[in-house]
Amino acid sequence: MPFDNEARAAKRLRKLKIGIVGFGNFGQFLARRFIQNEHTVIATSRGDYEDAAKKMGARYYRDPDDFCEQHPDVVIFATSILSTEATINSFPVQRLRRNTLVADVLSVKQFPKQLFLQRLPDDFDILCLHPMFGPDSGKGTWKALPLVYDKVRVGDEQSRRDRVDNLLGIFADEGCRMVEMSCEEHDRQAASSQFITHTVGRMLGSMELEDTTINTKGYESLLNLVNNTSNDSFDLYYGLFMYNKNATQELNRLELAFSQVKAQLFDRLHTLIRDDIFDTDGSSPEQLKKAWEKAGESMNERGYKERLIDQVNSTGVIGGSRDEHAGKGAESEAPSR
Amino acid sequence: MPFDNEARAAKRLRKLKIGIVGFGNFGQFLARRFIQNEHTVIATSRGDYEDAAKKMGARYYRDPDDFCEQHPDVVIFATSILSTEATINSFPVQRLRRNTLVADVLSVKQFPKQLFLQRLPDDFDILCLHPMFGPDSGKGTWKALPLVYDKVRVGDEQSRRDRVDNLLGIFADEGCRMVEMSCEEHDRQAASSQFITHTVGRMLGSMELEDTTINTKGYESLLNLVNNTSNDSFDLYYGLFMYNKNATQELNRLELAFSQVKAQLFDRLHTLIRDDIFDTDGSSPEQLKKAWEKAGESMNERGYKERLIDQVNSTGVIGGSRDEHAGKGAESEAPSR
Repeated sequence: MPFDNEARAAKRLRKLKIGIVGFGNFGQFLARRFIQNEHTVIATSRGDYEDAAKKMGARYYRDPDDFCEQHPDVVIFATSILSTEATINSFPVQRLRRNTLVADVLSVKQFPKQLFLQRLPDDFDILCLHPMFGPDSGKGTWKALPLVYDKVRVGDEQSRRDRVDNLLGIFADEGCRMVEMSCEEHDRQAASSQFITHTVGRMLGSMELEDTTINTKGYESLLNLVNNTSNDSFDLYYGLFMYNKNATQELNRLELAFSQVKAQLFDRLHTLIRDDIFDTDGSSPEQLKKAWEKAGESMNERGYKERLIDQVNSTGVIGGSRDEHAGKGAESEAPSR
Repeated sequence: MPFDNEARAAKRLRKLKIGIVGFGNFGQFLARRFIQNEHTVIATSRGDYEDAAKKMGARYYRDPDDFCEQHPDVVIFATSILSTEATINSFPVQRLRRNTLVADVLSVKQFPKQLFLQRLPDDFDILCLHPMFGPDSGKGTWKALPLVYDKVRVGDEQSRRDRVDNLLGIFADEGCRMVEMSCEEHDRQAASSQFITHTVGRMLGSMELEDTTINTKGYESLLNLVNNTSNDSFDLYYGLFMYNKNATQELNRLELAFSQVKAQLFDRLHTLIRDDIFDTDGSSPEQLKKAWEKAGESMNERGYKERLIDQVNSTGVIGGSRDEHAGKGAESEAPSR
């Protein structure tokens, strides 16, 4: 059932008491917006965030038992991917009201869904959320920023359904693009988009690409990508990998794509050397070896052929190319210069 | 000496007779703009471009000898990277006037510079150009689009220097950002920007990434990149690789960066498995083997540990990781599930 904004607006909007577990950057970011929307926010976390909470008008509880005894309507886990399981395992859920709504805001979704279904009492409602933005991109308006949600388990009573709609309504009212999607579909799409983006961004980031005086438009996109991912922690990246079962496959696809691009370049090189220049079909390493020897004897000026040979020698042969053996033969037989 | 726009403007601008060799997309694109600036354009090419030339007001010569006998002030090679050498080798340069200015517009620069210096008569002036735009990005205004130039060899006479300035002036008048840069520096910068951009673009292009309903800003940059490079031919990409001696090194750097990102992910995995879960230092394959066996016996519910193990099993071990041996031992000893 898609999120029905009008039906919700027609009802009296009950203000929620929202408990946030994990009060780091992201938890505080959400809390601030909830409070602006006149909801009550209480928080608990491993660290001491008393001051940060006070400043924005939230109540902070060092002790999770105290936090739970406040009986929030909604508990949102705003923990990191890596710490979520341990946090839930030690969390005194039995002190919460029996019909509490529990939500998460992780960048992976099947993992918290399974975790909630396994570890939370059957009476609890479960809502999985992924705000596809954060303190940077959502600093100002949330207009058009996507919120992915999956109503994993919501009791039949009207009050329970209203409570879910109330919580989602905060995001809808802020202008978010509301995307209802199963946790499984989310992880499939996120692995081929978000995880690949982070991987390429980190990869290029480690190359320390510089702003050149001759940037093309494509290169500008590349630099943008690096900027967009460089602020994110390795822990987040690792979480996207470790806790999304589709990530491994996408990483392999990326590696394969790279090999294919390289193979295209080198296959073309080998074909050129064989067919156009040495006039041999190169069907055996011995034939190619002879061709290279012949080439070494006959070339007197540095030209196209020698550049080809240099290129092959300096780069070696890539794994998986169908020319692997021929290439290796060529490498060891090329005249030294 | 940087391009001096004001000095040029102060002089009487002589209209040039510009000969274009290679009248494909790019040659026609330049010719059209030259004619708009009231220069005379003649053209020759392997194919028959009589109609295209006529349409824009250029004169087309099927026979390069006829073309040369027209004595153009400037000859611009607008051939592809791959065909340039063969074209110049068979070109009747001896029919041109002895003080002709020859230029190229290739995306690599050391290659045509060397080629011109080797193959052209000493009397010829040589100017290497790289308009960092084309028929798509330069369809409308050329304002702020970069033109890289290197005055490789220009005779001392004032008329020769004026002629170079006149040609460059066309680009300056169209609003180009004029970038004077040696061919060597151009190729260094282009390998780490343009070539890397094309490589990543082609790599991602072959993955057939889809527009998801949950695009992040970073992913949008990625898709932009693919769009920006997908219209370019494999021949251009191959040319950027083959004819830029810095490309091989950049390709290796990219591959290394990818390995490092993977290594970070997998090293973390192995460390976690060893230290946090099995309580062994993993300093020998035997120790790790025992740990895996122990793990296989003691785990009854699918949890964090099993997910870790699945992840390692399904992905295998990457080359170059310091954990290669330990990882392989683990893989073969992991309990099957």
